[in-house]
Amino acid sequence: MEPLYAQVEAALARRIADDLQPGDRLPSESELMTVFGVSRITVRRAVANLATRGLVDVIQGRGSFVATPRIEQSLRTVNGFVEDMTAAGLEATARLVTNETIAAPHDVADALRLEAGTPVTFIERIRLAAGRPVSFDVTYLPTDVGTAIARDDLERQPIFTLLEEKYDLPLVEADYRLQAVAAPERIADALQVAVGDPVMRVERTSRTADERPIDHEVLHYRGDAVSFATRLDRSLPG
Amino acid sequence: MEPLYAQVEAALARRIADDLQPGDRLPSESELMTVFGVSRITVRRAVANLATRGLVDVIQGRGSFVATPRIEQSLRTVNGFVEDMTAAGLEATARLVTNETIAAPHDVADALRLEAGTPVTFIERIRLAAGRPVSFDVTYLPTDVGTAIARDDLERQPIFTLLEEKYDLPLVEADYRLQAVAAPERIADALQVAVGDPVMRVERTSRTADERPIDHEVLHYRGDAVSFATRLDRSLPG
Repeated sequence: MEPLYAQVEAALARRIADDLQPGDRLPSESELMTVFGVSRITVRRAVANLATRGLVDVIQGRGSFVATPRIEQSLRTVNGFVEDMTAAGLEATARLVTNETIAAPHDVADALRLEAGTPVTFIERIRLAAGRPVSFDVTYLPTDVGTAIARDDLERQPIFTLLEEKYDLPLVEADYRLQAVAAPERIADALQVAVGDPVMRVERTSRTADERPIDHEVLHYRGDAVSFATRLDRSLPG
Repeated sequence: MEPLYAQVEAALARRIADDLQPGDRLPSESELMTVFGVSRITVRRAVANLATRGLVDVIQGRGSFVATPRIEQSLRTVNGFVEDMTAAGLEATARLVTNETIAAPHDVADALRLEAGTPVTFIERIRLAAGRPVSFDVTYLPTDVGTAIARDDLERQPIFTLLEEKYDLPLVEADYRLQAVAAPERIADALQVAVGDPVMRVERTSRTADERPIDHEVLHYRGDAVSFATRLDRSLPG
């Protein structure tokens, strides 16, 4: 016999698939208790499982909502934002927020293999897909190429394209580090989410053919806007 | 001339590296304004940049804290939780939460290439590293192997090890999908975080040599506990 919460969960999943739209609010716990004739704990378990399955977003103090589909990005090759959005059939645009030369902080200097304090080009952009802010991108470039790129039209031209096509510096590979973090105020404002909302933070250091790190980025994607997909082999040790 | 916020940011980063420990609270905005003789907006920008760089966690309503180091997991091959924690030098343990047979929900059935409603083994575990809860794992298995695994000691034996060694079903590859989500209540409780805190949600479907999907999981890692690292090639299209 199927546990009660699983029956309620299945019924709600069917209702989401058949009758509801992304962003629609689910009935309240009390309504669900009445409709299904079950306890609050059973309703909560069913809704929690739908959230676990990614079908529902539970927003603290506001209720449960049918999850909006995310933009799926491939994490199998190095792709820039415009390339990812184009692959998803979405128009990518950008707003330039910061364009300065700063002394490289320690961690940025490490990533770019420079001495800490070396001047680097520091660019911040809000990236939009179909007009919606999706990512807050922070880019650090060594000044030999960064000073030139800082004079390019950074609202229209992707940095990857500039590096590869205008400055003849093809990228070969990149190191990625992904974390789920809480949006700090400045990034929350840029992405139009609440402070503390989940953000996918992606650090990426891209290298050219001579293994030179040429572009260090910290990308902050709205958690509710994107997912990253990859396929990995099991290479058993031994 | 270095912008003022960058000078404050660099001074704070030095102080974090030299004098402070993970979890230590940064001085308040007002204190920082006094110490550096700068405006609130400059202090905020400096602290926001430290958060962007991952050096500081800004917790809404509580202040700014030196970030705790995350457990770095490789996203280059398929690894189970115990393998990842062992690689990080941490003892992995587990608490079994749920062990039932349920009718496969639609999305789970799709992942396991079953008809929706087919019975599947449904296992929930809290995974701990060095005694700290790190991940809430939901596992769905086809019953031909799942019914046997449900009788194994799931607090002591990893499912990957059981599949590969006890049931002779070596895994070959897996599809991954990563998302940053807000912790729903049940998962927040299990991971000892607040509801809405950032969680790294990892969907993983593992397949055996005959390309049969044998294990569908939804893993929920504490956002502040882990990061995932990989290296990708730029395979330019065309």
